[in-house]
Amino acid sequence: MTATGTTGKNWGRWGDDDERGALNLITPEAVLGAARACKTGKVYSLSLPIQREGVPIFDYRGAPQRLSLTTNSDNDRFQMFGAPAGLGANEDVLVLASHSITHMDALSHVFSENTMYNGFSADTFQTNAGASRLDVTKTGSFAGRGVLLDLPRHQGVDWLAPGQVIDSQQLAECADAQGTEVRSGDILLVRTGWLDLYASGETEALQPGLGKDAVRFIDEHDVSVVGADNGAIESIPFDDNEFLCVHVELLVNRGVTLLEHLYLAELAADGCHEFLLSVGGLKVTGAAGSPINPIAIG
Amino acid sequence: MTATGTTGKNWGRWGDDDERGALNLITPEAVLGAARACKTGKVYSLSLPIQREGVPIFDYRGAPQRLSLTTNSDNDRFQMFGAPAGLGANEDVLVLASHSITHMDALSHVFSENTMYNGFSADTFQTNAGASRLDVTKTGSFAGRGVLLDLPRHQGVDWLAPGQVIDSQQLAECADAQGTEVRSGDILLVRTGWLDLYASGETEALQPGLGKDAVRFIDEHDVSVVGADNGAIESIPFDDNEFLCVHVELLVNRGVTLLEHLYLAELAADGCHEFLLSVGGLKVTGAAGSPINPIAIG
Amino acid sequence: MTATGTTGKNWGRWGDDDERGALNLITPEAVLGAARACKTGKVYSLSLPIQREGVPIFDYRGAPQRLSLTTNSDNDRFQMFGAPAGLGANEDVLVLASHSITHMDALSHVFSENTMYNGFSADTFQTNAGASRLDVTKTGSFAGRGVLLDLPRHQGVDWLAPGQVIDSQQLAECADAQGTEVRSGDILLVRTGWLDLYASGETEALQPGLGKDAVRFIDEHDVSVVGADNGAIESIPFDDNEFLCVHVELLVNRGVTLLEHLYLAELAADGCHEFLLSVGGLKVTGAAGSPINPIAIG
Amino acid sequence: MTATGTTGKNWGRWGDDDERGALNLITPEAVLGAARACKTGKVYSLSLPIQREGVPIFDYRGAPQRLSLTTNSDNDRFQMFGAPAGLGANEDVLVLASHSITHMDALSHVFSENTMYNGFSADTFQTNAGASRLDVTKTGSFAGRGVLLDLPRHQGVDWLAPGQVIDSQQLAECADAQGTEVRSGDILLVRTGWLDLYASGETEALQPGLGKDAVRFIDEHDVSVVGADNGAIESIPFDDNEFLCVHVELLVNRGVTLLEHLYLAELAADGCHEFLLSVGGLKVTGAAGSPINPIAIG
Repeated sequence: MTATGTTGKNWGRWGDDDERGALNLITPEAVLGAARACKTGKVYSLSLPIQREGVPIFDYRGAPQRLSLTTNSDNDRFQMFGAPAGLGANEDVLVLASHSITHMDALSHVFSENTMYNGFSADTFQTNAGASRLDVTKTGSFAGRGVLLDLPRHQGVDWLAPGQVIDSQQLAECADAQGTEVRSGDILLVRTGWLDLYASGETEALQPGLGKDAVRFIDEHDVSVVGADNGAIESIPFDDNEFLCVHVELLVNRGVTLLEHLYLAELAADGCHEFLLSVGGLKVTGAAGSPINPIAIG
Repeated sequence: MTATGTTGKNWGRWGDDDERGALNLITPEAVLGAARACKTGKVYSLSLPIQREGVPIFDYRGAPQRLSLTTNSDNDRFQMFGAPAGLGANEDVLVLASHSITHMDALSHVFSENTMYNGFSADTFQTNAGASRLDVTKTGSFAGRGVLLDLPRHQGVDWLAPGQVIDSQQLAECADAQGTEVRSGDILLVRTGWLDLYASGETEALQPGLGKDAVRFIDEHDVSVVGADNGAIESIPFDDNEFLCVHVELLVNRGVTLLEHLYLAELAADGCHEFLLSVGGLKVTGAAGSPINPIAIG
Repeated sequence: MTATGTTGKNWGRWGDDDERGALNLITPEAVLGAARACKTGKVYSLSLPIQREGVPIFDYRGAPQRLSLTTNSDNDRFQMFGAPAGLGANEDVLVLASHSITHMDALSHVFSENTMYNGFSADTFQTNAGASRLDVTKTGSFAGRGVLLDLPRHQGVDWLAPGQVIDSQQLAECADAQGTEVRSGDILLVRTGWLDLYASGETEALQPGLGKDAVRFIDEHDVSVVGADNGAIESIPFDDNEFLCVHVELLVNRGVTLLEHLYLAELAADGCHEFLLSVGGLKVTGAAGSPINPIAIG
Repeated sequence: MTATGTTGKNWGRWGDDDERGALNLITPEAVLGAARACKTGKVYSLSLPIQREGVPIFDYRGAPQRLSLTTNSDNDRFQMFGAPAGLGANEDVLVLASHSITHMDALSHVFSENTMYNGFSADTFQTNAGASRLDVTKTGSFAGRGVLLDLPRHQGVDWLAPGQVIDSQQLAECADAQGTEVRSGDILLVRTGWLDLYASGETEALQPGLGKDAVRFIDEHDVSVVGADNGAIESIPFDDNEFLCVHVELLVNRGVTLLEHLYLAELAADGCHEFLLSVGGLKVTGAAGSPINPIAIG
């Protein structure tokens, strides 16, 4: 038992060298089942746009920049290759934080007691090389059965109150009310409504999110991945003011991959609570995370 | 009829304001069919790693850089938020071309006669704002039925010869031999073996790829997307030495999205020629492309 | 005569191919004279620090980023070269706008009627290659006699009023009161006090600065370079609300290099109004400007 | 005495909190003397151009990138501010290593036994904040008397042999032959001819440069700064194969600022061996170095 009253750590559960964590819970059979359970074939993008303004960005990460590498002004370049006038290519260079806007946390993202998931030392993340263990190439590619718990809809509000701490009971009641069964290996997405609050132009400093008690629900259902529409899965301020406490429980102790700032409004509007979810993060060697554009099929 | 002898342009086919091109050919029914046709539930990542060395990079695009934004050296920062010693987060900043390594071309990528797909002027791509039309947010999110034509396997070689021009007949014969039906709206992936040639350390300047005649096969089957394991879908040198001629036919004239430098070896090794393919490109407002990590389910 | 009532353009004055503009006015004799006229040998840096916060930054340029390339975490790298434990190097990568904070405008910075200084077409600046004419390598390296006109001191205020338009008479009166002779080829620095206003935390949107009439003073004294402590040399809002009107007169019509956001407080505090000034901008091929750290010797 | 037989460390020499090192040796009187000793008033730029190709770049630092931020394609932006058609501004974004091409090493650049100049711990350089001690803002702005020792000219060769280790005797003999007096606080520039070797297109892996014995010459003359035209001041391979041994002696033990890849050919061609040198590095808070464009006045 951990301090949170949950069953605790997954270290060693999939071997001492494991770098994939709870993604090991997703079996080909489960993926196959999720694919065959699709009902509408409608395709959903769960990513916000990546741009300098109008989307939630933590200052220290910097606003993402798209810069032009080539445009139709570069005639000379194209004509060097024999292109006739008016023929050429537009290209860009991107400068952006790995944890920009809609993104995934790799298992190397958080360390506690200078240790990451499965006991790997925080020192295995070096400034130049980045993560030699648990980088995003290990966990950035997966698909599985996704379930959405739409808390605001269940609670009859536009969004949960800023700073509200979500516990296991709220998750369980929402799942029951929706008739959504949460299974081992599922990708659990929690809608708090915070992105709608953000879009309304109101305060963005405080955010509703999971508290430590919610980890019990995650343990009981043995999910592989947790995602949400807020900035950190967990509430801000942190539950009991413990810095990154839910990150520590999920990423570090359990190896549960996290997906943040997911755009869940369209799934919610359609009442689509079960779907096939595919996530292809950028496979950046050494990175602790990646911007993502998860694709759900209803 | 165009100069290539194919049926020609899709401009106006889906309306004068259309920015999605041949992706309009993918229906929810087709997606549903592809999902339900999955056989193994095995998940494939079709992306190479993103790193500075050991992967194919055009010099002018620059080698992608992962730089550390925060590491466990930044105790002071974390402790400002009340973190105990040893608790913190690793994060990165990425600097990379939108067309780095495994990537997609948005429909604004190529212009001919200063015009892009559906007649939008090349001038709608501005240096600062990027594409106001046909940016990657319009085409970066899709799923559909993927088919793989494994040309080296069919032809009994490790890879097609560098510079070899692939025509419609070769594609048709390969499909027939594999027993792979290519349907309207399919995502057509062509394996040339070039990445294996690259990995062998041999010459990388010349590449096998589609020629102009291959566009006929694409027209006949009305596919939505074309992908390949080489750098430009088309052969290098270009067919008849016409700069970007297949890009012009597919991207500009037909609005067919292109996926380049796909990692197809694992699908090929498994003989997996039909699959559900999900692509979630970075939704960078104004960008002419995006690095991608397509997820196939067998 | 131009619309401003000044004598007008310097196009052709130093030849049709000239890319150095009014810097041609600085003679070795003038430099020698300025060097020999130094009185104290005190060295002044006229640059603000380059950092993400606490300095004036236009949003669209992005806050400058310093990222770590190597640190003492990278033992493995250093030991590959035979370094003992504890020996290594810290390095950085910088991402910053060429016109960040204290910077110089190259003569390719502004175009009017699609034309830059000396008649070069704005089309000679291409997205990929940047400026093939008038880039910062042409004007980024110079030294000369610098003079400071300290307007707030002369007018007995902390700073000129935000938005105040400075004219030739104010410049002439200040020079007279200071006993500062302004000579042909001089580097003219104008202190408005705006950086002190900025530092006070008050409004930063409006800025005092040169108006079109001030160009007459510059013509009469035939200076080579104009610098100021505000963001654009000229007032904001622009004189008569004409976008970049003083830039057009100085950069485009006269080839006068501009230095912006200079830190002039220390020179002013010492009453140092004449000095040797050396400017070494980054010699970035194709760039329209550069961050600078001008060095004055009193 | 250190292992090199030199007089050793300057730690504490200018106080326990000193972050300026041997730059303390430059007095206003010395600057004044150097200014007044100028003979020609000719201005020299000692920087190579900053560009992706054709200049020496260590791979791990990445080639510097100039990207366009705005160009004349961005009419819409400019017209939002009331600009008429054809009026606007070109701007750039730069992505470059702090130690790109011609650059300075700040005193935080190298650590030995996890310690930097004056005893500051290597841990004071953090990934996110960079150097809290000895960053380039402390040493990036100076001027003084510069002297050039032109070794190839003295030795009657185009360039010193790749890998050649320069000792104190060679420096002393060159100074004597030139009639150049080296004084306390001087900025000592050593020409090895390596940049000419590089420009010739021949091997660039091995470089001539200072060896450990040369530190004796630097101690005897108590210079403030050492610069050279090669990549690391010291020879490559390192003297006695000791990684960064001259950096340790100069930067760490003595607090002597280093200037690398200086363009010295023009000074050498003019036989200009004494001059006023002004260096204004980018004042990037936290950085361990900066690209520079030193300005010499003959």
